[in-house]
Amino acid sequence: MKGRIFSGMRPTGALHIGHLSVIQNWVTLQDQYESYFSIVDLHALTTGYEDKLDFPSLRREIALDWLSVGIDPQKSAIFLQSDVKEHAELHLLFSMFTPLSWLERVPTYKDQIQQLSQQGKELGTYGFLGYPLLMAADILVYKADVVPVGEDQIPHVELCREIARRFNHLYGTAFPEPKALIGKVPLLPGVDGRKMSKSYHNAISLTASPEEIKTRVQQMVTDPARLRKDDPGHPEVCVVHKFHKIYTPEVADIEEKCRAGKVGCVACKRNLAENLEKLISPFRERRSYWEEPGRVEKVLEEGAIRARETTSQTMKEVRHLMGL
Amino acid sequence: MKGRIFSGMRPTGALHIGHLSVIQNWVTLQDQYESYFSIVDLHALTTGYEDKLDFPSLRREIALDWLSVGIDPQKSAIFLQSDVKEHAELHLLFSMFTPLSWLERVPTYKDQIQQLSQQGKELGTYGFLGYPLLMAADILVYKADVVPVGEDQIPHVELCREIARRFNHLYGTAFPEPKALIGKVPLLPGVDGRKMSKSYHNAISLTASPEEIKTRVQQMVTDPARLRKDDPGHPEVCVVHKFHKIYTPEVADIEEKCRAGKVGCVACKRNLAENLEKLISPFRERRSYWEEPGRVEKVLEEGAIRARETTSQTMKEVRHLMGL
Ligand code: SF4
Ligand code: SF4
Repeated sequence: MKGRIFSGMRPTGALHIGHLSVIQNWVTLQDQYESYFSIVDLHALTTGYEDKLDFPSLRREIALDWLSVGIDPQKSAIFLQSDVKEHAELHLLFSMFTPLSWLERVPTYKDQIQQLSQQGKELGTYGFLGYPLLMAADILVYKADVVPVGEDQIPHVELCREIARRFNHLYGTAFPEPKALIGKVPLLPGVDGRKMSKSYHNAISLTASPEEIKTRVQQMVTDPARLRKDDPGHPEVCVVHKFHKIYTPEVADIEEKCRAGKVGCVACKRNLAENLEKLISPFRERRSYWEEPGRVEKVLEEGAIRARETTSQTMKEVRHLMGL
Repeated sequence: MKGRIFSGMRPTGALHIGHLSVIQNWVTLQDQYESYFSIVDLHALTTGYEDKLDFPSLRREIALDWLSVGIDPQKSAIFLQSDVKEHAELHLLFSMFTPLSWLERVPTYKDQIQQLSQQGKELGTYGFLGYPLLMAADILVYKADVVPVGEDQIPHVELCREIARRFNHLYGTAFPEPKALIGKVPLLPGVDGRKMSKSYHNAISLTASPEEIKTRVQQMVTDPARLRKDDPGHPEVCVVHKFHKIYTPEVADIEEKCRAGKVGCVACKRNLAENLEKLISPFRERRSYWEEPGRVEKVLEEGAIRARETTSQTMKEVRHLMGL
């Protein structure tokens, strides 16, 4: 029997190339695991309940991003968290036996409260405190064995394991203790060298046109010490090189030529732009297929049906064990 | 259009005559309101998650109690809270914008934590803190206008009104601000003069047989100063008299005769036992109808269907307003 994975992303805006490795990782995993990928709109509410988020458009965007990178709805269930009520139900049942102190000591909790309070957001809400518990319910309602997450989420998966243990201890074994699968996320800077972020306008979006790619690459900050084409370069301080390391097979060759002053930045950038175009053009093609009206909606609908098949089984067992 | 009421009771054991006025109040209200009466098993979990409660038998008992007193499934929806997932869903959505401080300042919260901690129960759980919020969801998912509750629950209804206001303010008006309808609950002591409680074995159960009624009434503590039949009595210190006040129309006459030493306690008790028998015998009759296998189950099933018709409407509107 295949293991199961669950993972989710908040629908907070179009994805960029910095997010790509996470989705590419899912694309690989969907062949090895029974996969549940959820657009976690309820989590977006834990921090954004006042933001009047445009969910219909946000969720369509993120689903299109996933599909264009290669998440395959034949292989994976792709769905909205809020379409599967069992997430809320299991979260409520878990809340009964979860000490407040477990939630208060989640390392990110106090940090984020403080950070967001500086941005003028007051997050001393019941839901924000409970969001790692909701995440535990998200994972365990699928009895996932493996949870692909970023490093910052390790404490949440640890809490999830504690919740599973506590349930199993109190009511009888229902849940596996899911393992975190930490994806290698290469840190891609924005074209200006700062953190890549849509709000800094320094990101390469997954929907970038060939022209956009060229423009963005041209904007990339190179070695400032290189004034002439045959000056020896320092690739380690060059944004272009950070991208070559990930997307250009012959990176070693480029590095050598740069150090020796044997390649100009213009040619080097042209090379990168071509490679990024090769990377992104299949996304564009798939996206144009999925963009046809009704297709994303159908994927999410069918994904929710598949998700509910699993979650309703789990909840039946949970209710039985809890005596409900 | 009829107004709506929601009320619930935890399934924690067979009811006794001390609970009767609450249910009789519901029986009256079900003719005036569209009525939703819920066996709130999830609330029982907030304090009893470790108690291994036998819900299948507990919920059957309490449903039988309601039905035998006259809650009419033709008029009222009678259902299990855990059968209607929208309670959990709305609770989760409300949690997003509910400040922790609102829950922490509910007057009963710290009191109960302390009380139950003396009984060896540690209730510093996320779910126990959130239970007034669950109650708000219980009420508002039916858009109830009126909530029949005991005096101790006034702060919970107040919180519910605050939640309704906050939702309406943040997302647009969806909810009424329900009013608490405080039922007059005559304080009936147990037969020994202490608080009536199943665990003190001093209660008259709603299923009492004629013999049990007689025995219980005989056990009732009377005026200790009355040694002989013609000693003047003091009805104000007599348990029998407290019952007469509620169940005997000619109570004024009895009181007078007692004070004058013109009625013996034996006769006085016989009179009360007869009146209690008149009260309880119709309950017994209805109960024997509803006890037939499958009948309670059918009531709860149909009640849940009716409840879900209403709650799914509310959730549709809520999701729409929240942009989900
Ligand atoms: S040649 Fe390429 S790696 Fe070297 S500094 Fe120019 S852009 Fe950067
Ligand atoms: S006569 Fe009745 S009311 Fe008076 S003391 Fe006896 S039992 Fe109580």
